[in-house]
Amino acid sequence: MAKLNFDLQHTDTLSRARTGKITTDHGEILTPIFMPVGTVGSVKAVNQQQLTNIVQAQIILGNTYHLYLRPGIQVLEQAGGLHKFNGWQKPILTDSGGYQVFSLAGTRKIKEEGVYFQSHIDGSRHLFSPEKVMDIQRSIGADIIMAFDECPHAGCEYVYARKSMELTHRWLDRCLARLAETEGRYGHTQNLFPIVQGSTFKDLRIASAQYIASKNAAGNAIGGLSVGETEEEMYAFTALSCEYLPADKPRYLMGVGTPWNILEGISLGVDMFDCVMPTRNARNGMLFTTQGVMNMKNKKWANDFSAIDAGFENEISNYYSKAYLRHLFVSGELLAGQLASLHNLSFYLWLVKEARRHIIAGDFTSWKQEMVQRLKIRM
Amino acid sequence: MAKLNFDLQHTDTLSRARTGKITTDHGEILTPIFMPVGTVGSVKAVNQQQLTNIVQAQIILGNTYHLYLRPGIQVLEQAGGLHKFNGWQKPILTDSGGYQVFSLAGTRKIKEEGVYFQSHIDGSRHLFSPEKVMDIQRSIGADIIMAFDECPHAGCEYVYARKSMELTHRWLDRCLARLAETEGRYGHTQNLFPIVQGSTFKDLRIASAQYIASKNAAGNAIGGLSVGETEEEMYAFTALSCEYLPADKPRYLMGVGTPWNILEGISLGVDMFDCVMPTRNARNGMLFTTQGVMNMKNKKWANDFSAIDAGFENEISNYYSKAYLRHLFVSGELLAGQLASLHNLSFYLWLVKEARRHIIAGDFTSWKQEMVQRLKIRM
Repeated sequence: MAKLNFDLQHTDTLSRARTGKITTDHGEILTPIFMPVGTVGSVKAVNQQQLTNIVQAQIILGNTYHLYLRPGIQVLEQAGGLHKFNGWQKPILTDSGGYQVFSLAGTRKIKEEGVYFQSHIDGSRHLFSPEKVMDIQRSIGADIIMAFDECPHAGCEYVYARKSMELTHRWLDRCLARLAETEGRYGHTQNLFPIVQGSTFKDLRIASAQYIASKNAAGNAIGGLSVGETEEEMYAFTALSCEYLPADKPRYLMGVGTPWNILEGISLGVDMFDCVMPTRNARNGMLFTTQGVMNMKNKKWANDFSAIDAGFENEISNYYSKAYLRHLFVSGELLAGQLASLHNLSFYLWLVKEARRHIIAGDFTSWKQEMVQRLKIRM
Repeated sequence: MAKLNFDLQHTDTLSRARTGKITTDHGEILTPIFMPVGTVGSVKAVNQQQLTNIVQAQIILGNTYHLYLRPGIQVLEQAGGLHKFNGWQKPILTDSGGYQVFSLAGTRKIKEEGVYFQSHIDGSRHLFSPEKVMDIQRSIGADIIMAFDECPHAGCEYVYARKSMELTHRWLDRCLARLAETEGRYGHTQNLFPIVQGSTFKDLRIASAQYIASKNAAGNAIGGLSVGETEEEMYAFTALSCEYLPADKPRYLMGVGTPWNILEGISLGVDMFDCVMPTRNARNGMLFTTQGVMNMKNKKWANDFSAIDAGFENEISNYYSKAYLRHLFVSGELLAGQLASLHNLSFYLWLVKEARRHIIAGDFTSWKQEMVQRLKIRM
């Protein structure tokens, strides 16, 4: 089947924002887009029908590290890949497991050949090499797969950042070589996105973006941000990375972020985003809304019977009241996590759709400036 | 508005099973029926749209004790009652809190005036009297409300059971008196169901059923069963209670039970059931299916990609595989509880609908005997 195609549709005149259409063997994705994170093949607390019909997700993420450990590659292969296993029929993107294994500080060792680590579940020892990670992603069968990279922490030394970036580049070449000698298992095309690193050093970021761009991949990712640097640095290095990445390929800013981070990212030329924030914060009672941020456990909502968020059309956010959702949180009801996750994800998907609409309409920048202020309000 | 009406439709010739239609101000209920339990105004892990569209619930329960503590009467009144608070538009039944406060062994004291108890949340002290419980149920606003009763444990002494039953009868009269002097707060009719007690003593059960029947209530409940007695005793005292309760009023067997308990109950003349079992067991990975009982965490399901249950039409049970649901349980994913609860509740609602269909078709008893055997199979 066909390689991923990106059709760049509109470009904003006052910013770097753009709209496009990604076509994969599992369907189309209109950009800019937010991708809900389904770590082990499940977007937490939300089922696949809800993701389709309520959230209106167009693509979801899976995590190679987590899926490799559970349910394991054998089960995924027997199922016919992750799409068949979890019943999500639209596009899937898998990360490379790089970020996860580097987060296992203390139990992992980085070598030229790859990363040795211990499972967080049973302590068993494993090696993730670029080749191994490509093979695992072949077994999972996502439409977009990520190169194996090292993601250094913000504030690392220049020398460490440079060596790490060079390792990431060598690993990228090994990923590409492995992919070239293997085939997708399930009849659809898998597309590798390489990842720009280089921490918060300008020359390294440029060098990395140039190296990544030279691979002429179907899409490109910006990694190593939202890992402890300031928001200003994040925006600056996102902008810099975008500048050196081809305009005719989708750009994916990994692991970002708040609703306003996403709007700023769009204005800098990013097309794709993912983050656990809408689901994780939802489970903790933090809601992002068209009117600002709400701590749902706050006593002030106890007898506020207005809708969770009436600012956009959504059968959950428009239907249940703040008072009811607050009651569910205070009572420790499982439904709290479900409703809050459905709301936050729906809101994120609505937000990127609105951004797209305003880019097309030509008033993106003024809309964005107003929205960023509004979305940050502590209700 | 109108008092609850029961239209007895079909009566089985080989058993006491029957079908009927209950009409309340919030809509109709076809019997026999199972009522999902929504303790604090939420059926655990399931939202109201799912209850309507997937589970096809016709009536749900709320618990007076829990709702009184959280969100509290003031919030419920401000909301305009539980229907408005939680967005469940169809009929609601609330228990009286009697069973809950008696379960708080050690922290409660039973007196003629009522029960003194301490909140399980903050230890605060409260009195539930028949009058208080009627007032609370007025504030909650359920369509069917339960009399305040004492529910003795199975195996209690005869003298205790008799005194307890007599107390329950005196409390019933106080409930009726209180209701007569108060009005529903929200414009719809609330219907009191008195409760037969008498433990597992034949003469007490008969005396209680006769006393309850004499009140000519819109419906009648059988309490004090499924509290530790044998299954044979439960069936025998259900049958005995039904025999003395009017045939032209719905009969509600409280807190029962497994799928086969429900089928046996139907054959004895029961019309309404409730139980936490389908939701509680679901969260622990125990599924009731058309093929028997499954422990979803069992390794044998790890690569069984067949549907959770293909034996009846259901968009969850037919869609997700045993392997995927097992993976969700093993990985501790929140979605496991949602999918399992949706399945179990849908299965319970399908089962009573099937029972109804077979009563109408005239082959209920043979169908029931076959089903009871099949449903008990450990898969």
